[in-house]
Amino acid sequence: VIVTLTTDFGTADGYAGEMKGVILAGCPEVRLVDITHDVPRGDIEAGARVLARIWDRYPADTVHVAVVDPGVGSSRRGIAAAAGGNWFVGPDNGLLTLVTHGHAVDEVRNLGASERPIGDTAPTFHGRDVFAPAAARLAAGADPDDLGELLPTDELILLPIPAPERLAGLIRGRVAHVDRFGNLATDVRAEWLTGDRFLVEIGDATIRGPARTYADGRSGEVLVLIGSDGSLEIAVRGGSAAERLSATRGTAVVVRTTG
Amino acid sequence: VIVTLTTDFGTADGYAGEMKGVILAGCPEVRLVDITHDVPRGDIEAGARVLARIWDRYPADTVHVAVVDPGVGSSRRGIAAAAGGNWFVGPDNGLLTLVTHGHAVDEVRNLGASERPIGDTAPTFHGRDVFAPAAARLAAGADPDDLGELLPTDELILLPIPAPERLAGLIRGRVAHVDRFGNLATDVRAEWLTGDRFLVEIGDATIRGPARTYADGRSGEVLVLIGSDGSLEIAVRGGSAAERLSATRGTAVVVRTTG
Amino acid sequence: VIVTLTTDFGTADGYAGEMKGVILAGCPEVRLVDITHDVPRGDIEAGARVLARIWDRYPADTVHVAVVDPGVGSSRRGIAAAAGGNWFVGPDNGLLTLVTHGHAVDEVRNLGASERPIGDTAPTFHGRDVFAPAAARLAAGADPDDLGELLPTDELILLPIPAPERLAGLIRGRVAHVDRFGNLATDVRAEWLTGDRFLVEIGDATIRGPARTYADGRSGEVLVLIGSDGSLEIAVRGGSAAERLSATRGTAVVVRTTG
Repeated sequence: VIVTLTTDFGTADGYAGEMKGVILAGCPEVRLVDITHDVPRGDIEAGARVLARIWDRYPADTVHVAVVDPGVGSSRRGIAAAAGGNWFVGPDNGLLTLVTHGHAVDEVRNLGASERPIGDTAPTFHGRDVFAPAAARLAAGADPDDLGELLPTDELILLPIPAPERLAGLIRGRVAHVDRFGNLATDVRAEWLTGDRFLVEIGDATIRGPARTYADGRSGEVLVLIGSDGSLEIAVRGGSAAERLSATRGTAVVVRTTG
Repeated sequence: VIVTLTTDFGTADGYAGEMKGVILAGCPEVRLVDITHDVPRGDIEAGARVLARIWDRYPADTVHVAVVDPGVGSSRRGIAAAAGGNWFVGPDNGLLTLVTHGHAVDEVRNLGASERPIGDTAPTFHGRDVFAPAAARLAAGADPDDLGELLPTDELILLPIPAPERLAGLIRGRVAHVDRFGNLATDVRAEWLTGDRFLVEIGDATIRGPARTYADGRSGEVLVLIGSDGSLEIAVRGGSAAERLSATRGTAVVVRTTG
Repeated sequence: VIVTLTTDFGTADGYAGEMKGVILAGCPEVRLVDITHDVPRGDIEAGARVLARIWDRYPADTVHVAVVDPGVGSSRRGIAAAAGGNWFVGPDNGLLTLVTHGHAVDEVRNLGASERPIGDTAPTFHGRDVFAPAAARLAAGADPDDLGELLPTDELILLPIPAPERLAGLIRGRVAHVDRFGNLATDVRAEWLTGDRFLVEIGDATIRGPARTYADGRSGEVLVLIGSDGSLEIAVRGGSAAERLSATRGTAVVVRTTG
């Protein structure tokens, strides 16, 4: 069984290393996969986006542990949720928001309300003391009933991520993610576009699309293309679109379909 | 068998990747776990702290390779040390200092004095040429006698980390570690505190404690709480205590117990 | 079977995490090893150097996936190449240049020309949609004929890395790599040096060599030594030679053998 890890802990402090030890001690045959420990600190939406990108590439029964948890130890719940044949373990703070876009949540367990307390719990490190042990139990084939009480799936906390506005020939969206290359992923889905061509407006720039890949166009040219997650993406050949366009997550994007 | 890796090599130069290849070639069934390759360059105390945090979360017989080694190739020894049912492999330069706080070292082997030289040894990269092969041998179940001669355990090099001063109602300690979030772990153990409340002085600030977790108090408030390693920890809700208090490792901390 | 990963994707965007999922889904028994995801963005030569450092530490039949791919989706080929008993999978853009120095390439397969298309392919993410599936197939023991047509091995794209100039008593080379510690690896092989001593000129500095390891000499002294990859290396004890000598990759280095 695979357990993946997505956190904002970095690696240098040893927090992620402690979590891995707890998981391996609880389920020695588990296969650990580091997704990232470099989610920006406390940025739940960024963590939600990573999780949504990666999870359905993994085999059924994979357990995804995601811990970006500024509210650790507060009244926010800890949960294990089943969706799409995988388990998701972490704080109930919105990390599953983007997984739920298009995938039903089948079951949610309240880890904090477990009959058996899960480990000795430091109120500042549920990653180690609640989520890692719960992931190890799930990986070891535990009955979900032993993890915690069932919660109504519609009580799952979702981030208030604004939905794009879709009008005839016009979509108003936003930059949803800036990647390491300065590429701007948007929340505009490629399948919403009618026709073969469109114009994208961001800041003062208007870009005609679509290009097919980053290497299209001249060096330094701003391109708009269909990103690998199926959304419109704005890029600069050989450069950073984020720098060039002074764009960050949330920057408004307007798409006009043209004939 | 699990082999963990804690280094200051980063990953981009391939040094950690070479070590992993050597370990896997020497013991194909080993389970490698990256703890971190981001220990600050040459910072033995930081490496010692990571190692002390993580090691006892791992199952018995785990081999922990720790390489922060500014003295590589000099007269400093390379060792394999047994403590708490685990093996520790690396330079004898103080990396085990904090593991030894509270855990007896059962056995120390001098890797440099091995009858059989371990690999072809570059004097600049014992991580690859001495420690990785030794870890592979231990993981493969080698007789420790084959690794190197026994050393007296009291010859182990320890860092001169100052101990906190404990007086009646007063503890003088220091910041022991600044984590990725700017939280300040101190060397003051929670179990030393008498009474339910205390004051912590750091720089010009006086903080009343304890809070229970980071989410206590108002946004931007300085908090003192019991950290997940059992020491007093100073944090700022939603911010960095290191920045707010201009604190680094070594900054003095005074704790006054009150009633 | 081991599959290693060398990319410039970072981990925070989830791209590397997607690749790992695809590989594990395609070959569940594979052992994944992260070499690095921190190759500088788009720096093919840096990726080539990492790959050349690490690959022959791994057991036979290891599959090395290397993706530094500024030309993704363009006419550049995707390949799987066999050399030294290992497979290398990635874009045909020069990443194998340094592997081929001293090792014959036995076979090259054109992944883009596969009879069976490999997955649904986003033109911006062949790491996930071409190279990860191909690596999984190789790890699972696929017939190379199923991966793609044979290419002439002499069509492999090689970076135009200048060769050092070797004269009697004089070698003109360059800095080949600057590592995390600011050490300067050069393209001058240690075995080219005649005699026991030599002088190295870089910028305004002349350094007498060789030292044996970093800890030789006084703190802050510039040293030249035989690096762990068998090339001349310039270092500063307890400091960064790159900063001290204002050197970067490509900086000229002259070696004069003396006596």
